[in-house]
Amino acid sequence: MKIVIVGSGNAATVLGKVIKGSGHDIVQVLSRDELHAKKLASILGSEYGNYITTPYKDADLYLFALTDNALHHLYEHVQLEDKIVVHTCASVSKNVLTEISEKHGVIYPLQTLNKESDELPEIPLLIDASSTEILTFLKTFAHTISDDVSVVNDEDRLKFHIAAVFVNNFTNHLYAMADDFCAQENIDFKRLMPLIAETAARIKKYPPKEVQTGPALRQDIYTLGKHLKMLSADPDLKYIYLKLSESILKLHQVK
Amino acid sequence: MKIVIVGSGNAATVLGKVIKGSGHDIVQVLSRDELHAKKLASILGSEYGNYITTPYKDADLYLFALTDNALHHLYEHVQLEDKIVVHTCASVSKNVLTEISEKHGVIYPLQTLNKESDELPEIPLLIDASSTEILTFLKTFAHTISDDVSVVNDEDRLKFHIAAVFVNNFTNHLYAMADDFCAQENIDFKRLMPLIAETAARIKKYPPKEVQTGPALRQDIYTLGKHLKMLSADPDLKYIYLKLSESILKLHQVK
Repeated sequence: MKIVIVGSGNAATVLGKVIKGSGHDIVQVLSRDELHAKKLASILGSEYGNYITTPYKDADLYLFALTDNALHHLYEHVQLEDKIVVHTCASVSKNVLTEISEKHGVIYPLQTLNKESDELPEIPLLIDASSTEILTFLKTFAHTISDDVSVVNDEDRLKFHIAAVFVNNFTNHLYAMADDFCAQENIDFKRLMPLIAETAARIKKYPPKEVQTGPALRQDIYTLGKHLKMLSADPDLKYIYLKLSESILKLHQVK
Repeated sequence: MKIVIVGSGNAATVLGKVIKGSGHDIVQVLSRDELHAKKLASILGSEYGNYITTPYKDADLYLFALTDNALHHLYEHVQLEDKIVVHTCASVSKNVLTEISEKHGVIYPLQTLNKESDELPEIPLLIDASSTEILTFLKTFAHTISDDVSVVNDEDRLKFHIAAVFVNNFTNHLYAMADDFCAQENIDFKRLMPLIAETAARIKKYPPKEVQTGPALRQDIYTLGKHLKMLSADPDLKYIYLKLSESILKLHQVK
């Protein structure tokens, strides 16, 4: 298939690599920033240009990997009547593309994508479309680039995004807080790597609620007290420690 | 080496399996609950008994994998003069064993241990001892059961425990909250598995602060608003969403 990619950020870059790697032909990369477009185009072996001023090349699919805000203003600049257009955003309705083309949809990668990373992770794709015909087309395309494709509507995609914020954004933030704490206290964060890996691996086998451990769960006042005393030098860390400990107690109460 | 294991919980069970698997001879399992001791002893091929009433067999090392509270009361029941005794707790000083034996120390597994799990994870060991002689002995022993051994004193072990609470207990709690949310909203938590795995894997290559993403970090008011509205049916989840979003903003401000 011939594909035009619009955008040059993490989603555009990683999806571009995956699409090219699956044997498709990326004919054009368009971005607001032409230098970024040029850089990505050189990786993907395509032409490049500006997504507002450059004429769009002919393609089977136009993939808009843009921010929420850019998507909302897209109709002011771009018309692709009768072409198949998709966006890649979790929290934006597919209808944002209605005025670009009647034939529209969504391909949302439920994965954290990092354009600097060489290795491509497994990417579950949540897809949706304006009609069953387009949905069938997108399903066929999505299966060429991922083994994990499911049809998910606007509302459920938003819900998946919320769950993703918990397991990715917030989890990564906890890693970052622990990393900062270790640096500050002069202990080696790297020693926690096996623990982090095991914590993530374990939920493949057990529901997370069943394998919860720690001083909050066992209401170990002695250890909680020692930890909070040690954290008194860092009020932000102490605050989150308290809030999440309370939250653990709440979740494990009989509701 | 001949080892006596005291305890029958997660730490006793997993460390017992690892020690036996490394070719040592576990001669006795003692626990407060004799049925639990019997069960673990049958796995480890040892004798069993009650850790307060049963006479302790002769061994090269006595490993007390007990709770913080049990350790604090141990001296009321157990004397093992001239024997080498260790405990496995993060937040308890090695000195809690002073009255059991002058030759004491700590072998703390910096890992989440689950006695139901068949696979044994990589277990970094943080060790400490009452003298350099005992430390050398424990170091040699620890290296027979783990590739990752380091000497860490009481204070730093407590710090590692705090960091472990963040990357394990709190992270697992976020998984549990997301799992609950998915069940409630009728979407499939399993679809998040690749995202969870990638989030944990990525920090081996990048400092977590550098790979933080999400609506809070980019101050995406539009998406935050959509998420909070969707979460209004679940005040506990909404509260943690807000607190962690605030915390992300705080950590990424210029300090």
